[in-house]
Amino acid sequence: MNIAIVFGAQSFEHEISIVSSIAMKDVLKCDLTYIFVDQNREFYHIPTQSITSKVFSSSAYAKEDKLFLQQGGFFKKSFLGTKPLEFDTVLNLTHGGDGEDGVLAALFEFYSIPFIGPGVEACSISSNKFLTKGYAHSIGVNTLEYQYFCKGDDITIAQYPVIIKPVRLGSSIGVSIVKSSQELDYALDVAFEFDDAIIAETFVKDIKEYNLAGTKINGEFQFSIVEEPQKNEFLDFDKKYLDFTRTSRVSKADISDDLEQKLRQNFEKVYNTLFEGSIIRCDFFVIDDTVYLNEINSIPGSMANYLFDDFNGLLMDVAYHLRKKSPIKVTYDYVNKIQSAKGK
Amino acid sequence: MNIAIVFGAQSFEHEISIVSSIAMKDVLKCDLTYIFVDQNREFYHIPTQSITSKVFSSSAYAKEDKLFLQQGGFFKKSFLGTKPLEFDTVLNLTHGGDGEDGVLAALFEFYSIPFIGPGVEACSISSNKFLTKGYAHSIGVNTLEYQYFCKGDDITIAQYPVIIKPVRLGSSIGVSIVKSSQELDYALDVAFEFDDAIIAETFVKDIKEYNLAGTKINGEFQFSIVEEPQKNEFLDFDKKYLDFTRTSRVSKADISDDLEQKLRQNFEKVYNTLFEGSIIRCDFFVIDDTVYLNEINSIPGSMANYLFDDFNGLLMDVAYHLRKKSPIKVTYDYVNKIQSAKGK
Repeated sequence: MNIAIVFGAQSFEHEISIVSSIAMKDVLKCDLTYIFVDQNREFYHIPTQSITSKVFSSSAYAKEDKLFLQQGGFFKKSFLGTKPLEFDTVLNLTHGGDGEDGVLAALFEFYSIPFIGPGVEACSISSNKFLTKGYAHSIGVNTLEYQYFCKGDDITIAQYPVIIKPVRLGSSIGVSIVKSSQELDYALDVAFEFDDAIIAETFVKDIKEYNLAGTKINGEFQFSIVEEPQKNEFLDFDKKYLDFTRTSRVSKADISDDLEQKLRQNFEKVYNTLFEGSIIRCDFFVIDDTVYLNEINSIPGSMANYLFDDFNGLLMDVAYHLRKKSPIKVTYDYVNKIQSAKGK
Repeated sequence: MNIAIVFGAQSFEHEISIVSSIAMKDVLKCDLTYIFVDQNREFYHIPTQSITSKVFSSSAYAKEDKLFLQQGGFFKKSFLGTKPLEFDTVLNLTHGGDGEDGVLAALFEFYSIPFIGPGVEACSISSNKFLTKGYAHSIGVNTLEYQYFCKGDDITIAQYPVIIKPVRLGSSIGVSIVKSSQELDYALDVAFEFDDAIIAETFVKDIKEYNLAGTKINGEFQFSIVEEPQKNEFLDFDKKYLDFTRTSRVSKADISDDLEQKLRQNFEKVYNTLFEGSIIRCDFFVIDDTVYLNEINSIPGSMANYLFDDFNGLLMDVAYHLRKKSPIKVTYDYVNKIQSAKGK
């Protein structure tokens, strides 16, 4: 099995994606092919042995072979025309924009490249906090109360404190906790700098937070251990992304079997059937034994490998069981019918 | 202004997209460039003067110049390397798969090609009936009652009659009206042949149906007339797609100003802010003066041109006011920080 890791791209989490992808060298035991998407969205094939973060920060990557997409995969230009890059399956490891918003998933789908990762719909739902809320409601999963506002709306906050979040960005970018109306305008300015829509979500101090990763293979759910992440009031960019360099296992949260069951049931509702083909991490809140979905990480930091006993085995299993779409055959029956009806 | 119409693609509505695109020749007064996506997802530049439906049904299109995507647009191979195809803006006129499910939108976004049409999120929400329901709920728009089922679920229908619909396909494909439990199994088999998830929606006989198209230009909504579509119990594939060849105006539905206002208010809620940059048609039901969203046509048949007084003017206006995304600048500050922290 040869897994092609696609990473980087035009994203606020470009650098985090690099770190996450480098971590895979220690975690995955199969052959790896590295496909870097630079910030201008050009593809490069980076030899696996030469992967270090410096290759990217120094722009040395630009000396490597350029790749381009055409039906069936990634190709290099060669003297004899074009040469396909050989691999079995892509692992989409592009965090944030391009990766988690469905853009790369659409490219893989269009060019018929098998990939591990969320599809276009799954990305839309998980990368937009407002859509996540609506989806959670539809599948019977709780979320914290919120209000939704677009740029230019009259904004009245129902109850303080709230967290103001741009709907689209991850990684706490543009996010503020607002304790009173005096602090609101500044927080709104910050949030609307990043997006034209925001949510204002109830802020619950010292809320219990639990992360659970998992996937579905051949109809069966596979879960990670439940982790209770360390946290401050809320995590800033740097602290949060320590995760992305993690390759060693963390310890299981000290929770009852009953709560673990509840978390798994909520995970299953979220996953089914939108997230097929991906390994995701759901971040939950728990208040008085009731589970609330906080967010869906459709491409979690370093794939949440540190939460699984045998992440390498799991990923291989996902790769082997990826579903193939059957192509649509166009018959032109309808066009022919119109032609004969119109006589042209 | 030169508009590049992108159409065809791997879609159950491939042929309808061809018909819709040909209709634009009579409707749009600007220069047109035709980019055909064949069922194998190869791009071809079809000279505007030679566009007829026969070019496609006879495979004659395959003799035209092939196009490929690279940063900045569509390109042709030439003796001197590559040559860009010149146009100002794409009009995405690919109905159904690839077009309305966000795949082409993602390609345009990735390759930095300005386009008129729904973005990735808008496509996900409008092309999946289950996600449409969840979204409608979030924005305070009514929909008919429904149940959601995945393949393998125990299915008990709350109340007959219901319409069984695969969540993802448009054009009434795989859709059945089920009047009693005896007819259920067959309808489910048909629907699950096309999708792994379905909705069972309350069927209301002789329901009033109204279509309203519109867009937002520079912050201002622009609406079409309201049409009351002709219908049978529900429209079959052929009848429904007469729409796609229509270029002459239809008459305004005979409704009160109050109802028209309500329809517009619902349209605004649906459109805001997810559908920016697109011209969409919302199909509503009305029961006892209450408006329910039936479906969002994010790329309506022949762009619903027949509902507008001056469709050509409208489209030009949308094209001029398309918003540009500002690119994200990657600084490598974070990677540099890790490098100095780890000394590598």
